[in-house]
Amino acid sequence: MTGKIICLGLGPGDPELMSVKSHRILTSARQVAWFRKAGRAGQARRMVQGLIHEDARELPMDYPVTTEIPLSDPRYNALLSAFYDDWTTRLSDLARNGDVVVLCEGDPFFYGSFMHLYTRLPRELVEVVPGIPGMVGCWTASGQPITWGDDILTVLPATLPEEALARRLAETDAAVVMKIGRNLPKLVRALHSAGKYDRAVLVEYGTMPEERLRPLSEVTGDVPYFSIVLIHGQGRRP
Amino acid sequence: MTGKIICLGLGPGDPELMSVKSHRILTSARQVAWFRKAGRAGQARRMVQGLIHEDARELPMDYPVTTEIPLSDPRYNALLSAFYDDWTTRLSDLARNGDVVVLCEGDPFFYGSFMHLYTRLPRELVEVVPGIPGMVGCWTASGQPITWGDDILTVLPATLPEEALARRLAETDAAVVMKIGRNLPKLVRALHSAGKYDRAVLVEYGTMPEERLRPLSEVTGDVPYFSIVLIHGQGRRP
Repeated sequence: MTGKIICLGLGPGDPELMSVKSHRILTSARQVAWFRKAGRAGQARRMVQGLIHEDARELPMDYPVTTEIPLSDPRYNALLSAFYDDWTTRLSDLARNGDVVVLCEGDPFFYGSFMHLYTRLPRELVEVVPGIPGMVGCWTASGQPITWGDDILTVLPATLPEEALARRLAETDAAVVMKIGRNLPKLVRALHSAGKYDRAVLVEYGTMPEERLRPLSEVTGDVPYFSIVLIHGQGRRP
Repeated sequence: MTGKIICLGLGPGDPELMSVKSHRILTSARQVAWFRKAGRAGQARRMVQGLIHEDARELPMDYPVTTEIPLSDPRYNALLSAFYDDWTTRLSDLARNGDVVVLCEGDPFFYGSFMHLYTRLPRELVEVVPGIPGMVGCWTASGQPITWGDDILTVLPATLPEEALARRLAETDAAVVMKIGRNLPKLVRALHSAGKYDRAVLVEYGTMPEERLRPLSEVTGDVPYFSIVLIHGQGRRP
């Protein structure tokens, strides 16, 4: 093997928020892969527009399934597992020609898809460059610190059952709720149960040109899957 | 006013992990402030060694107290409050000469000290550039994803009472425990109660040259205040 498979955390959206290290590796890369929903350009690819070398070989990795099959269906796991196996082999083969960069929105080790390749690859063949997680871009956009003093922060996927969401929201000082999309009505009920609905802020496309920030109480209609709800901590402040 | 007060998130430690934006603003700054324990250089200042312009005016902001007085003592809050008031005035005055940069390890809105100046300053005078939080550098250093699938992540300060720590650790899928230092023995007891002691990993100086990673069960003696304990999630993985 002459090359490595290097996963680059790209940060929350604004290309200037990627690290100096990711930027350096990205701009010299000659093989660039990224995950996307089939038929879409992919958010990761959009973020690096104008930064990739013109001779770079581009390798979009199209998910065989996203929301067409429920997670509970055994076919979901089987399809994704075969997909990750396949790309593990293909990227390993390509690494014989030199480094392969894999683009990752946010931070690779925080709910990122790259971890499914990472666990399949020999450890010595892989490098991971961290990035600013999407939630950090969102709380920066909100103009308020997320945690103060000894605040507890809980990160919750809105895919959890309503009762679990409500209990966790009630118990924590600060919260970040991810994976919202069609889970919004359930999340709204859980926030009411927890007595925190009035403090909830919805951030869409944090740090991107389409950035939008609203109290959740003003939201009507659908929201993107990659929007985030924030409950800001209220801890000690001298 | 002709300048702004710009807080730069510097990321977890490795200077190459600061964002392209922080790097750009930092290298052109002519007034650079940072918090430090009196008598120390300060971690933030060390991280930017060699990056600051040679003509930049340097403004170390020495905490009047760190661990000499317990948090519960009313003098603690009074001293810090006067200190933040004072620097709010001084930085506002300096901004009349042009931008003032305030260095911040990690991310400014995630347990950062800058928030105490932020809340005292007129909003239109301030800008915050996010950074990779220290915990992200630590879980990258650990070589394992922190969260998978629908894992819940809880961020806990080890300053919490033992019973609260144990309960939160038992309930969550993944955990990050911060502010360890002299709270280590209490944290170890809480991890035993929660049945998660054997999974706990201690990371010191994540992404820095002194980086050190150990199972918590192998740790004897003191650990730095800015070390972090990780419990990795075990969620869905196709």
